[in-house]
Amino acid sequence: MTDEVKGFTILRVNEQGKSEVEDVVAREFPFTIILDNQELVTLLCTPKDLKYLAIGFLSSEGLIENKGEIRKITLDDRRGVVRVETEGDKEVDRELLFKRLITSGCGRGAAFYSAADTTNQARVESQMKISAREVFALVKEFQLRSQVYRATGGVHSAALCDTKGILMVAEDIGRHNAIDKIFGECMLKDIPTDERIIITSGRMSSEIVLKIAKRNIPILLSKSAPTDLAVDLAASLGVTLIGFVRGRRMNVYTDGWRVTGE
Amino acid sequence: MTDEVKGFTILRVNEQGKSEVEDVVAREFPFTIILDNQELVTLLCTPKDLKYLAIGFLSSEGLIENKGEIRKITLDDRRGVVRVETEGDKEVDRELLFKRLITSGCGRGAAFYSAADTTNQARVESQMKISAREVFALVKEFQLRSQVYRATGGVHSAALCDTKGILMVAEDIGRHNAIDKIFGECMLKDIPTDERIIITSGRMSSEIVLKIAKRNIPILLSKSAPTDLAVDLAASLGVTLIGFVRGRRMNVYTDGWRVTGE
Repeated sequence: MTDEVKGFTILRVNEQGKSEVEDVVAREFPFTIILDNQELVTLLCTPKDLKYLAIGFLSSEGLIENKGEIRKITLDDRRGVVRVETEGDKEVDRELLFKRLITSGCGRGAAFYSAADTTNQARVESQMKISAREVFALVKEFQLRSQVYRATGGVHSAALCDTKGILMVAEDIGRHNAIDKIFGECMLKDIPTDERIIITSGRMSSEIVLKIAKRNIPILLSKSAPTDLAVDLAASLGVTLIGFVRGRRMNVYTDGWRVTGE
Repeated sequence: MTDEVKGFTILRVNEQGKSEVEDVVAREFPFTIILDNQELVTLLCTPKDLKYLAIGFLSSEGLIENKGEIRKITLDDRRGVVRVETEGDKEVDRELLFKRLITSGCGRGAAFYSAADTTNQARVESQMKISAREVFALVKEFQLRSQVYRATGGVHSAALCDTKGILMVAEDIGRHNAIDKIFGECMLKDIPTDERIIITSGRMSSEIVLKIAKRNIPILLSKSAPTDLAVDLAASLGVTLIGFVRGRRMNVYTDGWRVTGE
């Protein structure tokens, strides 16, 4: 975990007064993605699983469709630069990318709602179901496995699961990045995402729902809240959106038929 | 609060079983800013105080320096578009803006760390102090006043304060937007920000510290965590960064001389 946190001497103030203590803080690392010699984006992220982040980001943005397209990945993790070369030598439409990406992040979401993204996105038709008991068990396990968060309080986590347990966990200071790391690892390791579940520690905005639906994932869980656009989008894309999973309670916003009583 | 939330019929699952209930969810609203006839950005935001958001955003990005530059603001809050006209007819360098903005948001922060932003940014030289008791009282009042959060669990808040109390509160699904709303209101109403304090409900990343320092604000408070870049930047810009303010505890990361014992 040395790459993910940094130590500082801080002043702790409490009922007992002031004291200097050693503390650890989540790192925020600038990471530049270069696709076929075009500098695409600089993400601020947690410096771990950077290859997965790059590939997951490119896949989420529709710039890479599958692993076969990737010719070479060259990561310089000291300088914070990755070069991804594809078979096609992609010519990225900068103007389109500009319009999409400038709006990304925490309340700066992608402009998919107006664009082709949602209309082109197929509905998730999976007949998969999950019991309330399984939801509670997954979220409990998820919280236990969020390591950096417990050390620093400063990162988001995401997990890929089936109904029986967690298959993979990623952490990042950005909730989008954590999910992209999961999908990047899935693409590079040929791990299927159909009939699976994503858990996120963060709020569920429209962008997050779109990322999930792109991977044909039918169920999204969070201990946090959704936005109205996320609920509307999940309804139109057939995604079961479950929020406020806390202890033995949850709110099912869409496609509740996937949640069984047992 | 009708613009800020939307009602849904959801399925609530708890120990008592399943029931259909009415619930409210935070809205996520696409809002496009046009500066001197150039479409600049589409933010996803909470549809409230949109003029303040537009002006605060433009000011944070260095595109507007002061109120005198603004010739006209035309807000169409149904379509989600604002047109801001300036005296200068700004020619925005799209390439530069692209590089800065694509990295903005939750773990997609601005590229200031490499660029002129930090090196040009003057240190905050304020000799203002605050007592631990005042910090605890401010954060307690802040939590009481976060209305939409209490209804939906889905938004961030920001507040401008002096040591005695809260002067102004803003809420938004994005933590950056909430702070920009504060600064937009300050610019339009000629409210000074020097010798004042910002409280944020969100994590303190480098971008947030830079926004604060640009307004010459010496103290930033949060119940959440900072990142390492935020701590480094606060140290170099002379900002007192205080995190994990919870009950009667807090962590002072930088410039602790501003925090007095009483």
